[in-house]
Amino acid sequence: MPTPTLLVLDAEPLPRLGRLTGRVRVEHTDAAGLAAHLPRADVLLVWDLTSHAVRDAWPGGGPRPRWVHIASAGVDHVMCPELASSDTVVTNARGVFDQPVAEYVAALVLAMAKDLPRTLELQRARTWRHRDTRKVAGSRAVVVGSGPVGRAVARTLKALGVTTALVGRAARARVHGPEDLDRLLSRADWVVAAAPLTERTRGMFDARRFGVMQPSARFVNVGRGPLVVEEALAEALDKRWIAGAALDVFAAEPLPGDSPLWGVPGLIVSPHMSGDTAGWRDELAAQFVEFFDLWAAGEPLRNVVDKQRGYVPGP
Amino acid sequence: MPTPTLLVLDAEPLPRLGRLTGRVRVEHTDAAGLAAHLPRADVLLVWDLTSHAVRDAWPGGGPRPRWVHIASAGVDHVMCPELASSDTVVTNARGVFDQPVAEYVAALVLAMAKDLPRTLELQRARTWRHRDTRKVAGSRAVVVGSGPVGRAVARTLKALGVTTALVGRAARARVHGPEDLDRLLSRADWVVAAAPLTERTRGMFDARRFGVMQPSARFVNVGRGPLVVEEALAEALDKRWIAGAALDVFAAEPLPGDSPLWGVPGLIVSPHMSGDTAGWRDELAAQFVEFFDLWAAGEPLRNVVDKQRGYVPGP
Repeated sequence: MPTPTLLVLDAEPLPRLGRLTGRVRVEHTDAAGLAAHLPRADVLLVWDLTSHAVRDAWPGGGPRPRWVHIASAGVDHVMCPELASSDTVVTNARGVFDQPVAEYVAALVLAMAKDLPRTLELQRARTWRHRDTRKVAGSRAVVVGSGPVGRAVARTLKALGVTTALVGRAARARVHGPEDLDRLLSRADWVVAAAPLTERTRGMFDARRFGVMQPSARFVNVGRGPLVVEEALAEALDKRWIAGAALDVFAAEPLPGDSPLWGVPGLIVSPHMSGDTAGWRDELAAQFVEFFDLWAAGEPLRNVVDKQRGYVPGP
Repeated sequence: MPTPTLLVLDAEPLPRLGRLTGRVRVEHTDAAGLAAHLPRADVLLVWDLTSHAVRDAWPGGGPRPRWVHIASAGVDHVMCPELASSDTVVTNARGVFDQPVAEYVAALVLAMAKDLPRTLELQRARTWRHRDTRKVAGSRAVVVGSGPVGRAVARTLKALGVTTALVGRAARARVHGPEDLDRLLSRADWVVAAAPLTERTRGMFDARRFGVMQPSARFVNVGRGPLVVEEALAEALDKRWIAGAALDVFAAEPLPGDSPLWGVPGLIVSPHMSGDTAGWRDELAAQFVEFFDLWAAGEPLRNVVDKQRGYVPGP
């Protein structure tokens, strides 16, 4: 096999591809240069986690890479109809973020149950004010998204004694289908969105669904921003339809400084970092190198995305 | 048996003793009236969780209650040599707070691992700043205190994948003795103080012990304030000997508004609330009523405090 060309859609810091040295010709590009580089690449590594550049550049003319690896769990920022209908194999970083995201959700759930944001406010005011808090064990959660992230979230919440239901695109063993969602929402203390962004999940958390939830319920989104109708969430918090929420992902990222979401009472805003524990970039690079070995050996790739559905189908 | 007199050292809200109605003569007192009431009480319920009034009033003359129930896990605020050497049985609220405190510790550990206080600061400043966080699974904790609270903390941290060592007053099955403490501290990511306050534990977290810990270590105290030399902790944080800390208990409570602890960078201050989940006062009252039934029937009480040691000896 001639030395393949690996094109990297860059982001800082660059991936460490140590073991590939000498085995590939590596070309780096930014979003602006992508269209020009694409035709001579055998493999595209989408290292930039947020750029829509692939979606924009792919439809252009000329040959296309046979394999695209997306170094994130979500693929919505990359997929386009032309890529979906092509022969190109798309893989993602499924597996790297599961446990970190699950811990992040547990951190948010516990922080809200224990009223930690208010404790930090009172500390700034040097004010000693005792409050009763909520027991997490024995409470009820619904996790929407039955992929590895959702399942890890459910496992971690269960380990804390939370009765947890998983909701996926269709009912199966230990997973509820969408038909159960409203009933589960109406009884949940915690609602966690951990689904991929697809045409079926876009905007699923809207005014009606926040209205179904209990006034004591709290909502967490670690999936993708557009799963949530942000204005509806802000209104639900403002009108006390629900008791609190935490968003780690947003329709527009970075969230603009003038977004009203920064200041919604009862809302915790964090900068899309739920999966990013120390060393995460090295884990992503190591996973790509591992997949490259399979690809170079002509073996089946792992984490192959169903390009119509927009995620890696699971068990 | 003549109707016994139950004396309650009051705090708001008063205990709900429903089932005892008609079976006891209930007298209520505040700290100032305690000495005058003590001689005619058969049973003393120390409902005030912070007052030192019993310690002050007990040595006076006249008969004394045969049973004192302290509605908290710690008994240090009540015990005095005269009570310790008397025939009076002392019981405590062991069991009510275990799971809530364990969850509170998990909340603090996860909040620190995920840099949540900084996230809330950045949110106030409407600033999007991604940071890498720490994975909790695979990290190491030392829990000092091998009673029910310490064991619940250890169980909960283990459920999150944290390798956890328990340290008690003497080595036994699954519990390290004090001789292992410094070695364990030197390798721990998380150090949790959940011990009773006794002459052996007072001031045990001093400058030397903070010096033994790793620069990346974080310290949590949910036991009693005087376990910690507070100035030494403030200095350890200031000099970056350790990376962070959270105190829920203090030498002086409420923590005075002018205490420097409110403003120590890297320190989370909360108002002695780790065990207090909704309904905790009713659980305490129900536990006392349950014990009263045993006492009235002449059966052995539970949670009997070893008055020399200052806690309920465990398995």
